[in-house]
Amino acid sequence: MAQKASIPKGTRDFLPAEVAKRNYVTDVIRTQFERYGFLPIQTPAMEKSTTLKGKYGEEGDRMMFNILNSGEKVKKADVNALQDNALAQFTSSISEKALRYDLTVPFARFVAQHQNEISFPFKRYQIQSVWRADRPQRGRFQEFTQCDADVVGAVSPLLEAECMQLFDDVFDGLALKDATIRINHRGILAGIAHYLDAPDRIVDFTVALDKLDKIGPDGVFNELRNKGFDDVALNRLSPLFELSGNVMAQLDQLEEILASQPEALAGIAHLRKTLDFVNPFKVSQLAFDITLARGLHYYTGIIFEVAPPKSVAMGSIGAGGRYDNLTAVFGLKDVHGLGISFGLDRLCIVLEDLNLFPASLTKAVDIVVLHFGDEYIQELMSHITRWRAKGVRVFTYPTTHKLKKQMQFANHSNALWALFYGEEEQKEKTISLKNMIDGTTVKISIHKINASFFIT
Amino acid sequence: MAQKASIPKGTRDFLPAEVAKRNYVTDVIRTQFERYGFLPIQTPAMEKSTTLKGKYGEEGDRMMFNILNSGEKVKKADVNALQDNALAQFTSSISEKALRYDLTVPFARFVAQHQNEISFPFKRYQIQSVWRADRPQRGRFQEFTQCDADVVGAVSPLLEAECMQLFDDVFDGLALKDATIRINHRGILAGIAHYLDAPDRIVDFTVALDKLDKIGPDGVFNELRNKGFDDVALNRLSPLFELSGNVMAQLDQLEEILASQPEALAGIAHLRKTLDFVNPFKVSQLAFDITLARGLHYYTGIIFEVAPPKSVAMGSIGAGGRYDNLTAVFGLKDVHGLGISFGLDRLCIVLEDLNLFPASLTKAVDIVVLHFGDEYIQELMSHITRWRAKGVRVFTYPTTHKLKKQMQFANHSNALWALFYGEEEQKEKTISLKNMIDGTTVKISIHKINASFFIT
Repeated sequence: MAQKASIPKGTRDFLPAEVAKRNYVTDVIRTQFERYGFLPIQTPAMEKSTTLKGKYGEEGDRMMFNILNSGEKVKKADVNALQDNALAQFTSSISEKALRYDLTVPFARFVAQHQNEISFPFKRYQIQSVWRADRPQRGRFQEFTQCDADVVGAVSPLLEAECMQLFDDVFDGLALKDATIRINHRGILAGIAHYLDAPDRIVDFTVALDKLDKIGPDGVFNELRNKGFDDVALNRLSPLFELSGNVMAQLDQLEEILASQPEALAGIAHLRKTLDFVNPFKVSQLAFDITLARGLHYYTGIIFEVAPPKSVAMGSIGAGGRYDNLTAVFGLKDVHGLGISFGLDRLCIVLEDLNLFPASLTKAVDIVVLHFGDEYIQELMSHITRWRAKGVRVFTYPTTHKLKKQMQFANHSNALWALFYGEEEQKEKTISLKNMIDGTTVKISIHKINASFFIT
Repeated sequence: MAQKASIPKGTRDFLPAEVAKRNYVTDVIRTQFERYGFLPIQTPAMEKSTTLKGKYGEEGDRMMFNILNSGEKVKKADVNALQDNALAQFTSSISEKALRYDLTVPFARFVAQHQNEISFPFKRYQIQSVWRADRPQRGRFQEFTQCDADVVGAVSPLLEAECMQLFDDVFDGLALKDATIRINHRGILAGIAHYLDAPDRIVDFTVALDKLDKIGPDGVFNELRNKGFDDVALNRLSPLFELSGNVMAQLDQLEEILASQPEALAGIAHLRKTLDFVNPFKVSQLAFDITLARGLHYYTGIIFEVAPPKSVAMGSIGAGGRYDNLTAVFGLKDVHGLGISFGLDRLCIVLEDLNLFPASLTKAVDIVVLHFGDEYIQELMSHITRWRAKGVRVFTYPTTHKLKKQMQFANHSNALWALFYGEEEQKEKTISLKNMIDGTTVKISIHKINASFFIT
């Protein structure tokens, strides 16, 4: 009996039209990455489990796809661990490799491993798939593509400024307007936690703060109260929700409120310096966002998050921040890092929703050559070869099906031209061309026609 | 303690220079695929085990990378199967997915699954990684990239001819001369087996024949004798080893010898028709090879294999053939297929050995902007932005390290230009540029310089 053709949940096939769209987006991102001096690297899909485990928290370990050891090695399965419900131990007895979960940890491993083969500051970009056993939903898949650019081995607000500009240039390249680049700084969050007399509870505090958009200030206050923050602390917090004006103005207000907090002041100063580099040219839709606290377990400085235009219901389409010492776990200390990342899959959804993909992407073939008999095609072959050599994409219909069927195919293929070469054309040494968009037909001497005719 | 940074055996990191080379090769292949009307698709790295298992023989099942089920699902491990040494059964109790082993079976699954979304004849190309738990050696890795082009839903010698031409165009595009496209036909092999009175032993026979290069005619005879072929059969075989002349001449000789074998004659006629399409233009280094018997368990017509130039010690760099009914197992019958495949990893090794990569690939950055202080860089930013917008790849050195260190970096980066903008240039409203190849320096008015200056 035939098997049902299907794929694992959360994974996707991409048909030609979708691949064209994805390539369009990655080409724009790649081009911009390269203009900022980032160099491409690639790492293997499978990493050693020891490289990945413990780097993403408990949830990360749980959502990692583990590769079963090959052949006889599975005999070493730790059955006792299984019976004791020690699943992680059981897993590690039969699995030594896992699929990469993001591009950051493999990059850190790469930098440590190849430190003598690269020059610092090292700017790398990487556009590859990652895998997570996450519950699939809109814009969330078990296999998806990340587009990361990171610089390691240098600290300078210039780098942060270039990241913002790079976000902007990518969105410009995609004709995506009104994406908002939100920024914050870990120093500011630490300063606030200190200011609330809860320096060791920065995570509790930021988790609540992060919900401001959803539950409003009162909701945040309630949550913090439940977590044991007292009214004195909450009164201090209030003015922080009322910053107004542009980024610079907000930083001024923040500086006043947090005047007693050196960590916050250092963060504010750093953001100001960063903006000095960005000032002379545009970064559209830059917003300071005190509630932005993503990746706080590894970001040590600036934090970025990019929201799509408000008309699209979708989480962030880009993110990033400064991290330090990410390579230390692999034995390379004091390597400072800064990185940004684009989510290809979400970007594609946003562009689709806003109808921003160029119409030309649907056109993957220039000419469909209709088939009136092998002898006609044989005569045409030298011309077809000549056109192809100049870049024309030619689909030679392979058999003498009925003309109607062949024309239907030409229609579906979105080719601009259908080419007729039959008895009449053979006698006249011409070809007939039908423009598939406006339906007009033209007959041209076969020796006069150049490849440039087809790719205007 | 720090972990050792390393990757699983048989896998590779690609540094920027290597990625540039790989992209160069895939760009050439992709461009040629598209000129022949092939459309890109992508399939997930993970397929259901039921899709892949049993499609590649016992060896394939053994070398497949299986993905462990996530979370609680591993509790269903069939411990009894493990204790009974029924490893395949144990594996399937804890694993429902595997990494794709090639691109052909996923493509067959794709065609069956999406048959109502695509137009036949469907020409697709696919350039993606595949994974095999094979013993690593030169040119053989556990993760490697295949570049496949297949057409399904049509039978015509025109398609075979286009495959040969496509092989040729790709090698031309890579400036790779003297690759040999070897062809054979399953019908000819079946005819020979019949002629030797062993129609049901075509595999035994071709396995021996395949060794002709290594062990010579006598070796092949011995092996066949050991397998029970008698002297009458072997005497009949002798003349087949003595074909001479070009492809057409060899087919003439073969036709005479196998005149009594209809299957062989049909195969010969098909190859002749194919060559009729290729005749008017060149296919360099086309060779008929009676010993070519690869993939005989699925090829049903023409068989291709491409050998690299003799000066390179390396197995085939391309292959292909006609197969029929590959999609039947997924419920879609009578879909004829023809495909060819390039091995990216081997092609890269061959080009490297022959020194055929363009020198320009090493140049990933156009300008390194030296850093004499943030204020200078801030003044330059609008110009840098202008140049980047025109496609110039600019690396702004992020900190005011000693000039010597910055120049060392510029050297290593292979940038053509190092840009100086310090006190002197600021006063003069100029920039100084050092050509890193010839060492010459030039000073230019900052407002006069265009992006085109940097990317000639």
